[in-house]
Amino acid sequence: MTHQLKGTYRQKLYEIIFEAETVEGKVFDVVLLVLILSSVLVVTLESISELNQQYLPLFRFLEWSFTIIFTIEYLLRIYSTPRPLKYIFSFFGIVDLLSIIPTYLSLLVIGSQYLLVVRVLRLLRIARIFKLTRFINEGQVLSRALRASVTKIMVFLGVVLTVVVIVGSLMYIIEGAESGFTSIPISIYWTIVTLTTVGYGDIAPVTPLGQILASFIMVMGYGIIAVPTGIVSVEMARSDREIATTRTCPNCHKEGHQLDANYCFNCGYEFGKNAGLN
Amino acid sequence: MTHQLKGTYRQKLYEIIFEAETVEGKVFDVVLLVLILSSVLVVTLESISELNQQYLPLFRFLEWSFTIIFTIEYLLRIYSTPRPLKYIFSFFGIVDLLSIIPTYLSLLVIGSQYLLVVRVLRLLRIARIFKLTRFINEGQVLSRALRASVTKIMVFLGVVLTVVVIVGSLMYIIEGAESGFTSIPISIYWTIVTLTTVGYGDIAPVTPLGQILASFIMVMGYGIIAVPTGIVSVEMARSDREIATTRTCPNCHKEGHQLDANYCFNCGYEFGKNAGLN
Amino acid sequence: MTHQLKGTYRQKLYEIIFEAETVEGKVFDVVLLVLILSSVLVVTLESISELNQQYLPLFRFLEWSFTIIFTIEYLLRIYSTPRPLKYIFSFFGIVDLLSIIPTYLSLLVIGSQYLLVVRVLRLLRIARIFKLTRFINEGQVLSRALRASVTKIMVFLGVVLTVVVIVGSLMYIIEGAESGFTSIPISIYWTIVTLTTVGYGDIAPVTPLGQILASFIMVMGYGIIAVPTGIVSVEMARSDREIATTRTCPNCHKEGHQLDANYCFNCGYEFGKNAGLN
Amino acid sequence: MTHQLKGTYRQKLYEIIFEAETVEGKVFDVVLLVLILSSVLVVTLESISELNQQYLPLFRFLEWSFTIIFTIEYLLRIYSTPRPLKYIFSFFGIVDLLSIIPTYLSLLVIGSQYLLVVRVLRLLRIARIFKLTRFINEGQVLSRALRASVTKIMVFLGVVLTVVVIVGSLMYIIEGAESGFTSIPISIYWTIVTLTTVGYGDIAPVTPLGQILASFIMVMGYGIIAVPTGIVSVEMARSDREIATTRTCPNCHKEGHQLDANYCFNCGYEFGKNAGLN
Repeated sequence: MTHQLKGTYRQKLYEIIFEAETVEGKVFDVVLLVLILSSVLVVTLESISELNQQYLPLFRFLEWSFTIIFTIEYLLRIYSTPRPLKYIFSFFGIVDLLSIIPTYLSLLVIGSQYLLVVRVLRLLRIARIFKLTRFINEGQVLSRALRASVTKIMVFLGVVLTVVVIVGSLMYIIEGAESGFTSIPISIYWTIVTLTTVGYGDIAPVTPLGQILASFIMVMGYGIIAVPTGIVSVEMARSDREIATTRTCPNCHKEGHQLDANYCFNCGYEFGKNAGLN
Repeated sequence: MTHQLKGTYRQKLYEIIFEAETVEGKVFDVVLLVLILSSVLVVTLESISELNQQYLPLFRFLEWSFTIIFTIEYLLRIYSTPRPLKYIFSFFGIVDLLSIIPTYLSLLVIGSQYLLVVRVLRLLRIARIFKLTRFINEGQVLSRALRASVTKIMVFLGVVLTVVVIVGSLMYIIEGAESGFTSIPISIYWTIVTLTTVGYGDIAPVTPLGQILASFIMVMGYGIIAVPTGIVSVEMARSDREIATTRTCPNCHKEGHQLDANYCFNCGYEFGKNAGLN
Repeated sequence: MTHQLKGTYRQKLYEIIFEAETVEGKVFDVVLLVLILSSVLVVTLESISELNQQYLPLFRFLEWSFTIIFTIEYLLRIYSTPRPLKYIFSFFGIVDLLSIIPTYLSLLVIGSQYLLVVRVLRLLRIARIFKLTRFINEGQVLSRALRASVTKIMVFLGVVLTVVVIVGSLMYIIEGAESGFTSIPISIYWTIVTLTTVGYGDIAPVTPLGQILASFIMVMGYGIIAVPTGIVSVEMARSDREIATTRTCPNCHKEGHQLDANYCFNCGYEFGKNAGLN
Repeated sequence: MTHQLKGTYRQKLYEIIFEAETVEGKVFDVVLLVLILSSVLVVTLESISELNQQYLPLFRFLEWSFTIIFTIEYLLRIYSTPRPLKYIFSFFGIVDLLSIIPTYLSLLVIGSQYLLVVRVLRLLRIARIFKLTRFINEGQVLSRALRASVTKIMVFLGVVLTVVVIVGSLMYIIEGAESGFTSIPISIYWTIVTLTTVGYGDIAPVTPLGQILASFIMVMGYGIIAVPTGIVSVEMARSDREIATTRTCPNCHKEGHQLDANYCFNCGYEFGKNAGLN
């Protein structure tokens, strides 16, 4: 009987912590949202040395408070879920653990508390309180298009990296250490900075030949940005088209009907009201 | 009778100030256009310290002149419109008010007169004198495409911001204060500067590990620019397509039929051979 | 009779100078191509002060030689063309004149000879010797797409410029003269540098508020680059489609046949061999 | 008989070195992959002066070891292939030769060993061990789209280069040597840096007129990036579409029919209802 009660209690806890259907579940998620944002803000502000010197005890107190709360929450999650191991090794389980470890670690390694910003990843879980199904759908369209482009983009990146290694070495030979091209890795770094049109200017070519080669790389970088853009645009258009046009007429099997169509535009067959989408 | 006269006078004023159909209305708008541009130019030039020291009395005189003229215009607009409250709380009503307040405010707070550049927003109203309906249509196509993309873009920005916070903190830990990464907020600022390929170079990584991480961010930033571009391209193509298929059913007047459709997808009406496109 | 002879001579001259159908015409154009490129190279090299000091007499000699040759060519063009005024006020007529004036002007105004680089525009005329009809066709597809996008792009630029003026003024108020934001025009310049992701770094915000506003502008600039890209992509796709798909079946008037189609894909009608494209 | 044996031995060698179908062939390729990556890494690390001073004998030893191994491999390739001349003058034959020459050359010319990074190109050959046919297909789609766009892109680059020469000269005249615009070639270099939105900031305009012209170039550069992107997107969409419509006529085997076609556009054959897509 106590077992049954405990079971019900655990189930209730599960609904509050893991779901957002009940009032308590929603309140829990909103409180969690505020706690996560506050804790990331505290870590961020702590890194500003003027504030750190002035409010060190306050920051430490808040940091430990958040960590203890999140530790209790983590243990409750393990306790309440019917399949603890599956939770522990899930993406969010690992993020939840990583969100508390750095504080304990900071007792041993100074500075490791800044890793607490990984807590920002926990916000992804909070998405559900806004019932952001529309956002999640859009995210799926995006990630579907990106996954479909991934092979093309890897081929593209492979070619770009080969170019970057060769051009970086050429710039090292042409410019030499006086202009800041002190080694091939630094030159490769500079080539990436230039090809991606970031252009810090901490290193810049000074010899005429170096500037001519740099000009070629810039124009190239300016041009090849078209490639990933073209890839993603085409995949996105396809992904978009497929979602819109797989409705099929049950009479003539013509595809591509608009979602609000009542009749087949090919054979004139009337779609039933309750037919739904195929 | 005076009331009727006054009514006619107010109506005439309304036509001159708010519309541009009559000759007087057009003259009013052209004068207003010149005044707005001049007043923004004066504010801009006043901020150049050499000019300010030399021509301070002139600038002050012009500024107050423009403000008094715009104040009179604002009061006349309230007087002449049949629904003053609706005007006052409309977008343009608020802009009109914000365009005169800073001058009066500058008596209390020094420097607030530079807020007068908000007057540049008033130019949007002047668009009508060019009868820029074509421009406005194009603007609607653009804003329609942007509005349709807004959810996808917000999902995209959410993911980007999460990446920016984590990468910024990592760079702070890796580089430290000597390279200019003095705090996590500064590091986040640097990450945004790099990811967007702006690359000022006021802060730049100097450690090998920092430069490797920076290279990843640059390539990533270079790649993910494809995502918003792809989103907007697809939405714009769709927006364009939808406007292009304005074929209307002669039976039920439903728009948007595909150009090769034989039957109305809404009412099942069979399009005649000689029907053509409407 | 002399008049007739003179007419024939002038006509022959016209064919050589203006056309490239005859052997002499082609030789003339190749010589002109070499002269133009050499003269632009000389102007460019002259601007390098070390070379200028060493080879000044040589540069002057070459510059005057090219100018005298181009002057004779210009006069011959006026002489040989049947409609001299139309040539003089055509695009290429003006470019040809501007290509010789700066040398004469340099007698009065020192440094004006660098304007001679305008000669590079003359290369556009030389395009015909390569019989670059394919290039010209592609150029027409490009310029057609750009012309079709011009209204949308102007609306876009108008909105961007309004944003730039307001943000520039805000940055001036926030940052002030110590960070290099010495006036509103300079701040507007900085905003353009940032929004277009150029990012020189000669001016960069140092206050937290300024850096936050700068971050917004960067993300905005990063995002809105999608807009012109989307516009041009859509117009280019349309321009491309229209060229490919306006072929119409003479039997069923179905449009969109591929250019190498022999039969209508809708009604099976056989297109005649000599039918050509409609 | 020995000749036959030798022939078989050569054929076996050919299978191991040039192919990756047998176990030995795969092992050979994996070993080669590791050797190439190691040798590029050694060249890269050697250029870092601190490491170079400390480990010079080790670097020299490794460099010569790799070079001797690659030389033997190169000779074996020539020996085993049935058509040695064709191999020697093929792309990979030349890359293989260039991958060993710099080490021998470094005996004569100091520093030429850095050219060894050309070995990175050899990785392209290793692609086959991953059976990367999917990658190669994607690469073909990419390169097909790029080849189709090449004329448009050349027209575009021609116009851009003309603009760059003229704007560069104008900036030289406007800014002069004090701001770093010391010659027209340097100004042209700066214009490319700005137009491509790289923006190092090593040279930046300081005069108001120069900053206004620079702003125009930035906005222009920001806008015209849309052109190559648009070109590649359209070509990629077309390339994608053409591959997608591989519907083949069962009568004449012509490919590329539209999915809703009822008749073959080539031979007029009527597609059966149950034909489906091939």
